[in-house]
Amino acid sequence: MKKNAQVEFLPFRSIHSFARGTNLLDAVRKAGLPIKSACGGKGTCGECLVRVVRGRIESRSSAALPGDIRDSGYVLACQAVIEDDLAVELPRFEEQFIRAEAGSRLIRERPDMLSGVFEVRPLIRKIRLSVPAATLSDNSGDLLRLQRKIHKQAGLRVSRAELGVLKKMAAVIREQDGDITAVLAKSGSGWTLVDLQPGPSPKAFCGLACDLGTTTVVCEIIDLQDGRVLSTTAGFNQQLRCGEDVISRIDYARRPGRLEELQALAVQTVNALLETSCREAGVANEDIYEISLAGNTTMTHLLLGLDPRFIREEPYTPTVNLVPDIKAADLGLRVNAEARVHCAPAVGSYVGGDITAGLLSTPILRDAGITSLFIDAGTNGELVVGNKDWLATCACSAGPAFEGGGTRCGLPAVEGAIEAVRIAGSGSLEYRVIGGGKPKGLCGSGLVDLLAELFTQGFIDRGGRLVQERARKRLVQNGEGAGFLVEEGSRSFWGRDIVLTEKDIANLIRTKGAVFSACALLLKNIGLTFDRLDAVYIGGGFGQRLDVENAVRIGLLPDLDRGKFHYLGNTSLAGASLILLSERNRDLVQAVAGKMTYVELNAEPGYMNEYTGSLFLPHTDIGLFPSVEKLLGPKKSLRD
Amino acid sequence: MKKNAQVEFLPFRSIHSFARGTNLLDAVRKAGLPIKSACGGKGTCGECLVRVVRGRIESRSSAALPGDIRDSGYVLACQAVIEDDLAVELPRFEEQFIRAEAGSRLIRERPDMLSGVFEVRPLIRKIRLSVPAATLSDNSGDLLRLQRKIHKQAGLRVSRAELGVLKKMAAVIREQDGDITAVLAKSGSGWTLVDLQPGPSPKAFCGLACDLGTTTVVCEIIDLQDGRVLSTTAGFNQQLRCGEDVISRIDYARRPGRLEELQALAVQTVNALLETSCREAGVANEDIYEISLAGNTTMTHLLLGLDPRFIREEPYTPTVNLVPDIKAADLGLRVNAEARVHCAPAVGSYVGGDITAGLLSTPILRDAGITSLFIDAGTNGELVVGNKDWLATCACSAGPAFEGGGTRCGLPAVEGAIEAVRIAGSGSLEYRVIGGGKPKGLCGSGLVDLLAELFTQGFIDRGGRLVQERARKRLVQNGEGAGFLVEEGSRSFWGRDIVLTEKDIANLIRTKGAVFSACALLLKNIGLTFDRLDAVYIGGGFGQRLDVENAVRIGLLPDLDRGKFHYLGNTSLAGASLILLSERNRDLVQAVAGKMTYVELNAEPGYMNEYTGSLFLPHTDIGLFPSVEKLLGPKKSLRD
Repeated sequence: MKKNAQVEFLPFRSIHSFARGTNLLDAVRKAGLPIKSACGGKGTCGECLVRVVRGRIESRSSAALPGDIRDSGYVLACQAVIEDDLAVELPRFEEQFIRAEAGSRLIRERPDMLSGVFEVRPLIRKIRLSVPAATLSDNSGDLLRLQRKIHKQAGLRVSRAELGVLKKMAAVIREQDGDITAVLAKSGSGWTLVDLQPGPSPKAFCGLACDLGTTTVVCEIIDLQDGRVLSTTAGFNQQLRCGEDVISRIDYARRPGRLEELQALAVQTVNALLETSCREAGVANEDIYEISLAGNTTMTHLLLGLDPRFIREEPYTPTVNLVPDIKAADLGLRVNAEARVHCAPAVGSYVGGDITAGLLSTPILRDAGITSLFIDAGTNGELVVGNKDWLATCACSAGPAFEGGGTRCGLPAVEGAIEAVRIAGSGSLEYRVIGGGKPKGLCGSGLVDLLAELFTQGFIDRGGRLVQERARKRLVQNGEGAGFLVEEGSRSFWGRDIVLTEKDIANLIRTKGAVFSACALLLKNIGLTFDRLDAVYIGGGFGQRLDVENAVRIGLLPDLDRGKFHYLGNTSLAGASLILLSERNRDLVQAVAGKMTYVELNAEPGYMNEYTGSLFLPHTDIGLFPSVEKLLGPKKSLRD
Repeated sequence: MKKNAQVEFLPFRSIHSFARGTNLLDAVRKAGLPIKSACGGKGTCGECLVRVVRGRIESRSSAALPGDIRDSGYVLACQAVIEDDLAVELPRFEEQFIRAEAGSRLIRERPDMLSGVFEVRPLIRKIRLSVPAATLSDNSGDLLRLQRKIHKQAGLRVSRAELGVLKKMAAVIREQDGDITAVLAKSGSGWTLVDLQPGPSPKAFCGLACDLGTTTVVCEIIDLQDGRVLSTTAGFNQQLRCGEDVISRIDYARRPGRLEELQALAVQTVNALLETSCREAGVANEDIYEISLAGNTTMTHLLLGLDPRFIREEPYTPTVNLVPDIKAADLGLRVNAEARVHCAPAVGSYVGGDITAGLLSTPILRDAGITSLFIDAGTNGELVVGNKDWLATCACSAGPAFEGGGTRCGLPAVEGAIEAVRIAGSGSLEYRVIGGGKPKGLCGSGLVDLLAELFTQGFIDRGGRLVQERARKRLVQNGEGAGFLVEEGSRSFWGRDIVLTEKDIANLIRTKGAVFSACALLLKNIGLTFDRLDAVYIGGGFGQRLDVENAVRIGLLPDLDRGKFHYLGNTSLAGASLILLSERNRDLVQAVAGKMTYVELNAEPGYMNEYTGSLFLPHTDIGLFPSVEKLLGPKKSLRD
């Protein structure tokens, strides 16, 4: 038996070694991770509640912890002792996510790009009106008088009403002599009366836009009357414990009860973010009357509890691309009882609602004359090429390397992540940390920078292998193999060296290669070449800023005029917000999803060749990257 | 303290006297009322369960009776001893109702009258189809392939799907290689997928048509694929314990918790009838996919749990006339979880869905050239006059006298009710009993006959008072005043004299007067006279056969050519069935309800005069009834 136990802290993916017998609260603090404890370890405040997701732990029973909670694996860290290898999930991590992850940035910072799409005409409306009293000569029912008034005042035809609203209608209409506030939701060609309050109603009237990612989930509370973003919260998808990518989650769901578990975890993730979002926005859960959700096809299926297995079996068929609206309460989402969930439409099994929504946040659907490429490099990479009149799309399995997964030093774009890196000719390395403190690791944009710098400065070769003599000063060797030292443990947040290993580099190269080869193949499939593209829009979880120059240098993006590139951030979330706020956008995105040409890369004969060619920096055929060729000079470019 | 206790047995309204200390099971049997007991009074079988609704009773606790049932007033009759005056509700009364109460008779016996209305094109459909398998070249989602196939095969556009259906869709479609049976419900302009089963699906596919009356409720299970009536069941509205007519129920609902009680009683009534109906039809509750309900405005409000108070306060405003479709499960009705309840539309507070549905079962909406009158003489009397192009309607408070309420000898048209009466010149009386056994009382048609015979044979005068010398042999005098002996106790089912008292006669005259004066006033209001009517259709709870001649003689119906009259029975139920089976009928009845002219009789200046003139047999102005005048001869007609 080893003397020390290995403890992995989730969702940070950071692994630390502790002597058996170490108190778990002490261990978390030693690891430099955030945890609260108001009672000072007496087991009474409950703030240090953590969940053991792997391994066994000894814990004193405590009055602060009910039995059913304990049975689910929760322990109070202060009452628990490490005896074995463990994986422990820490609380409240989502609060550390930085706000800039949110797609609302796009709405705030680039209104020009959204001209004609950003409008506040949601499919749910709040209207104040005065219902005329009945008289003996017109004693038509309350609902009819209300319907007539709404039609006259707002031009909306009310064709349905929820039972709960009918029940209180007579009283509400009479409480303030006909002065009421009505909430209406579009359904089919008419509107459904979903709520009724007397008088002006001081209550907030909000919607939730949600980017339901495989790795991270971001929620925005939006005021449905003026479109303002009231709060933004992000967190890891709690399904992560069941698998990192969609394929592993689909496999996980095959066993009995597992689909229900995944569905519950998705709902828990959104509900947890809702708690924080509502608190920050100063609104109540029941003030949220609609949810607009953008997720890939698998995430959408799992949230709804639909069996995803046929998504990964040939011929790759989802149950549904265009999901009919669902009542939020039927899913267990804690918002207004009448709120409905609208899912952005998918094109197919691997081009989901995150892409159609994201597309809406680019100018592509409005540009007639020019041809653009949209790249969303999430855990899965998806591409769309075309314009207002035609669109083709495909997906590739990129992996989560640029979202902070799949590498030991990778992190999502959270506080403590290195988001930018420069290596001087001397070999000295400079970086910028989100939040300014000690670094924990690198987020996507930092990894792109680091890889580009290592490559152009000659620390690695075109195959991604470390060049021993050049990298000597920062070369480290551990159980993971050779690596490049980014920062020493003494200066890092967790006290451990931050190292990019050759394995990590290979992983990054596979990811960028998957994206680039998919681009090349998609264009080839529709008979276009890169130089015919007028614009390239990039979305995904890289972080706040993606250095396009470096992304070209590593061969992630094609070598075009840099002015053609636009990094948009979280396009999926931006699209969800735009759909939430506008009926026209919802119709548009549904129409677009229905007529997009879906290209199945696996069925393309040249796929493996293209992919293999992309597994170099920047590419086997360096002629595709003339600016990089020029930068490296004749000698370097021939090196490999 | 009186030696004997008075026990009223509900829903029979029969009162019996028993020595204190009598066992309740023995008492029920002594009263000749139906009750079962398999264990022979040992308190173990539970079959003699009754409910004490007034008074206290001593009961041994019994293992056959859980505590929560006991707390609701239920006792096992065999374990209970009468110590006090009581009202006791007996079980399973509804099974005694005769089938002919049902409106389906109209569909079976008078297909000529329904030409053009009876069609099987319901708003819920069951379709068997073969969904093509997905291929790599068409791997669109399961829902989309299903939608396309349904559109191609049946021309229906599916725009929504229930979450439960989506969840099982992938598995069901693949279970028998695409061979499935789908259930679709119309919603707005599209159809919603409400169920999906693999293969041909042996399950029944039924709807429920329900006449939700103030006094009696009738349910029919109808096969939605061919329109056959599979079973018919009727029972008292359990709300009767809260008041006999709509006004008393509205008043009852004013106290906290009472509206909920009335709603629960309405649901219990329908659920109890459903149990029997389903058993007789050989179908399961979940095989019922839609409910079509016709009730007056108050009954509809109470079923939905809508506050009815404004229905009886000037200006008499219901919450809703055209009720949006409601999920049956939301009301607690035990049918398929996805089934919806469709309520026939009301015109106003006192002209409800029972009338608009009933109207559909008459030829009025299809007759262009001729002008007809439709009379529904239920607990409330409602009238409609007009034709295909225009309609006017009004309501009057008739009272339940012709439905078996409001008189001591009155009964609904159940087994044991006298449904026809003849009095020979000699004074000897003949009658026909439903079911052929000993008589319990008289149903509506029997009361009409009796009143007409008493009047034309000179046993009562035009004011309804007994003519002493003529009636001498059958004259009885009791605490209720003078009365006419219909049958002696020794020959009656309950061993009590069946007597029509002067009070009862006055009640019947008020009822017929209310109906006739409303007819006269409605016609006057629109500038018509009786002789301009080409047809008179009569619905209501009189029983199987209403003798039109006698109805004219007492002044209930106008003195027109007898060939113009058509007694249709339960038009409300017939209409509910027609609506259940046909989308076109549903649209038609909604359009008709929306444009009918509603005449408020209370607001008419001549109302009291008309009514007072009708409080004689047949009327103060006998010139309105020339055939009656002729029958009575010059002497009799001057008598009063």
